[in-house]
Amino acid sequence: MGDIQPTITAVNGFRVAGVHCGLKKDDKLDFALIVSETPCSAAGVFTTNQVKAAPVLVDQERLKHHAHHIRAVAINTGSANACTGQQGIDNALQAARWVAERIGCDENQVLVMSTGVIGTQLPMDTIRRGVDLAVDSLGDDWESAARAIMTTDTRPKMASKMMSMIGEDQKGYQIAGIAKGSGMIAPNMATLLSLIVTDARLNSQATTNALREAVSNSFNSIVVDGDMSTNDTVLLMANGASEITLQSRDELQRFNVGAAFICDKLAHNVVQDAEGATKFITISVLGTYTDEEARQIANTVATSPLVKTAFYGNDANWGRIVAAVGRAGIPLELDITQLRIAPGEVAFSSDDSLLLFDGGLPTDYSEEEASRIFKQPSFSIMLYCGIGGDGTAIVYTCDLSHEYVSINADYRS
Amino acid sequence: MGDIQPTITAVNGFRVAGVHCGLKKDDKLDFALIVSETPCSAAGVFTTNQVKAAPVLVDQERLKHHAHHIRAVAINTGSANACTGQQGIDNALQAARWVAERIGCDENQVLVMSTGVIGTQLPMDTIRRGVDLAVDSLGDDWESAARAIMTTDTRPKMASKMMSMIGEDQKGYQIAGIAKGSGMIAPNMATLLSLIVTDARLNSQATTNALREAVSNSFNSIVVDGDMSTNDTVLLMANGASEITLQSRDELQRFNVGAAFICDKLAHNVVQDAEGATKFITISVLGTYTDEEARQIANTVATSPLVKTAFYGNDANWGRIVAAVGRAGIPLELDITQLRIAPGEVAFSSDDSLLLFDGGLPTDYSEEEASRIFKQPSFSIMLYCGIGGDGTAIVYTCDLSHEYVSINADYRS
Repeated sequence: MGDIQPTITAVNGFRVAGVHCGLKKDDKLDFALIVSETPCSAAGVFTTNQVKAAPVLVDQERLKHHAHHIRAVAINTGSANACTGQQGIDNALQAARWVAERIGCDENQVLVMSTGVIGTQLPMDTIRRGVDLAVDSLGDDWESAARAIMTTDTRPKMASKMMSMIGEDQKGYQIAGIAKGSGMIAPNMATLLSLIVTDARLNSQATTNALREAVSNSFNSIVVDGDMSTNDTVLLMANGASEITLQSRDELQRFNVGAAFICDKLAHNVVQDAEGATKFITISVLGTYTDEEARQIANTVATSPLVKTAFYGNDANWGRIVAAVGRAGIPLELDITQLRIAPGEVAFSSDDSLLLFDGGLPTDYSEEEASRIFKQPSFSIMLYCGIGGDGTAIVYTCDLSHEYVSINADYRS
Repeated sequence: MGDIQPTITAVNGFRVAGVHCGLKKDDKLDFALIVSETPCSAAGVFTTNQVKAAPVLVDQERLKHHAHHIRAVAINTGSANACTGQQGIDNALQAARWVAERIGCDENQVLVMSTGVIGTQLPMDTIRRGVDLAVDSLGDDWESAARAIMTTDTRPKMASKMMSMIGEDQKGYQIAGIAKGSGMIAPNMATLLSLIVTDARLNSQATTNALREAVSNSFNSIVVDGDMSTNDTVLLMANGASEITLQSRDELQRFNVGAAFICDKLAHNVVQDAEGATKFITISVLGTYTDEEARQIANTVATSPLVKTAFYGNDANWGRIVAAVGRAGIPLELDITQLRIAPGEVAFSSDDSLLLFDGGLPTDYSEEEASRIFKQPSFSIMLYCGIGGDGTAIVYTCDLSHEYVSINADYRS
């Protein structure tokens, strides 16, 4: 498999656009459209928040019956179209209908995503202008599309990867993705807007399986603030334009790994660009009875305001980490719990790690050495629970800074 | 019943001291001792964190066997004596032994509390000096005792109340309490250090019942940052020095209400003095099937960083509140959910409230009016879930400010 690229040049059979239609102030790109020339197998993973935005409800319903021939996705910023009642649903359907009319397909073949403020209706004249401008601009400018879905993001998030068939280096297909998200990022759901595309051909079931697997260890493993959006959506569309059909178990497995790499790269980008973040922190937990237990401990540490402010303050405050572990609700044996830190992004073990806590007590580690690690832009926390199980989890998170407070105290004003 | 006073003059049979022995820098008071001249009925509520500090383990063990004749409580700052292993236990026991020797009682009659940094051993020479200085200073200076247990608190927290017997205005007793706490405050446990004393006589069971009831709607209903300390402890000591014995159901019930008032007042003081807090927010939830469900919704709103930063920014961002409600894990019917806000501290309903969200949609409320309420130093959020049950909960919380980040990024340095 080829390397992951931080850009997308072109993906066979897909045309995209990012335009400014007036949803955002200034001249910022604010509306994106992704169109496949041929019908796609599609799958979606959505927020588990009980308050679901209109586009989430529309897409969930549409994917029940039309997952084998999706043609396009339209994405608007400015309004989340959440808490907007029947009119919100009608507006989401109308936006999809306009796209269908312009590209020549059935309205059921169009999906929609929205991001922005909760509780405002879509400004439909502006959306109509967005659809028209975007259809007129369709081409290979994936960066504009990635830029057009940004809200408090400071940079566009893209990744792509060439995949070769097993034993056939000349025959290949591509997987590519864009994402947006920098706040309201929590574990255990899709956590943001992302669209993954491929020019390989997969059936609907394989598409669904690939997306679920890719999301579980990427977008579902990142924590910014523990808040969960009403709009979180990750879609995968496979149009088969490469004329490569993935059917064998090995080839499908290879695809799944490739899709997981793309999602992982985008998830990393989201955490690195998180609101106010100054640090990238990898938290790995090992030795619980189940993976779920390990994940709950990692998430509790990753969402603790006291831990996150200590990260921000370059303070290797293992006491706050251990206190967060202790309130995660998972059985612990403190006497055999070990806490290590290491520079960079590592999981479970590292030659370069520093043992801070062992056998219920702090070690005689060097405070200077610990502080040196916590001053790195990327460092890792490794917790070994040692209660006999083989549960593991890795969660990526960031610190809690003054800037996070500034961004979120001022967002609507 | 008399009014609640924000001070404590003297409580029959109790002598107290707050001294500086060198645990804190400068000349700040850093060690407190509370002694009863006669044995007390005592009860404790402790952190549910699995990582429990040595003083918590010592007190829990001691109260199993000696709850009917406790004589004293010693409280040190500077070190939490948590994650300190057997030496930490030995040190806690030694501190209690020194107190016992000086006041003339069995060491099992002395309880201990600690607050400060996790993972450092108590400096025993300094603790010894604290015990000696405190014993030599015993008197009625409750304010010094309240000051001597402060960490990041900006002011001492005290409350007292004269209680009269039913039908006998001349015969009375007192309930008084001190507390410390401004960070690591989370729901569902004791959340801080607090000592409640009374000169009434109650048996051990009545003391335990009164404390449980008082804590459940006060200290267990406040949220600062959702973090849970290793040391949280609330103790109640009843010495009977007023020569009033509470035995009848009515008199005991009256005592419970009085103790609850004292705890409620202290809990309010903690939220009002929370790290970096600029606002006091009352969140009430009504109409779930159970109280636990209502509490889970209220706690999810109270711990949401996005909601708390909106509070800080005077932004009546009901969308973030509704999104937090939606991820609380409690079944909702959005179409019949109502969200109101009101100035001041009110619960469930208010003549002065503003309906923001109703029937799945925002109302046409005045943004100016909403902002005016959110600019108040105290305001209330009222959520009516309307799914047919009679579950209710009230939670007190504060906003998340730049100052919170500053305090907690710098705490150890």
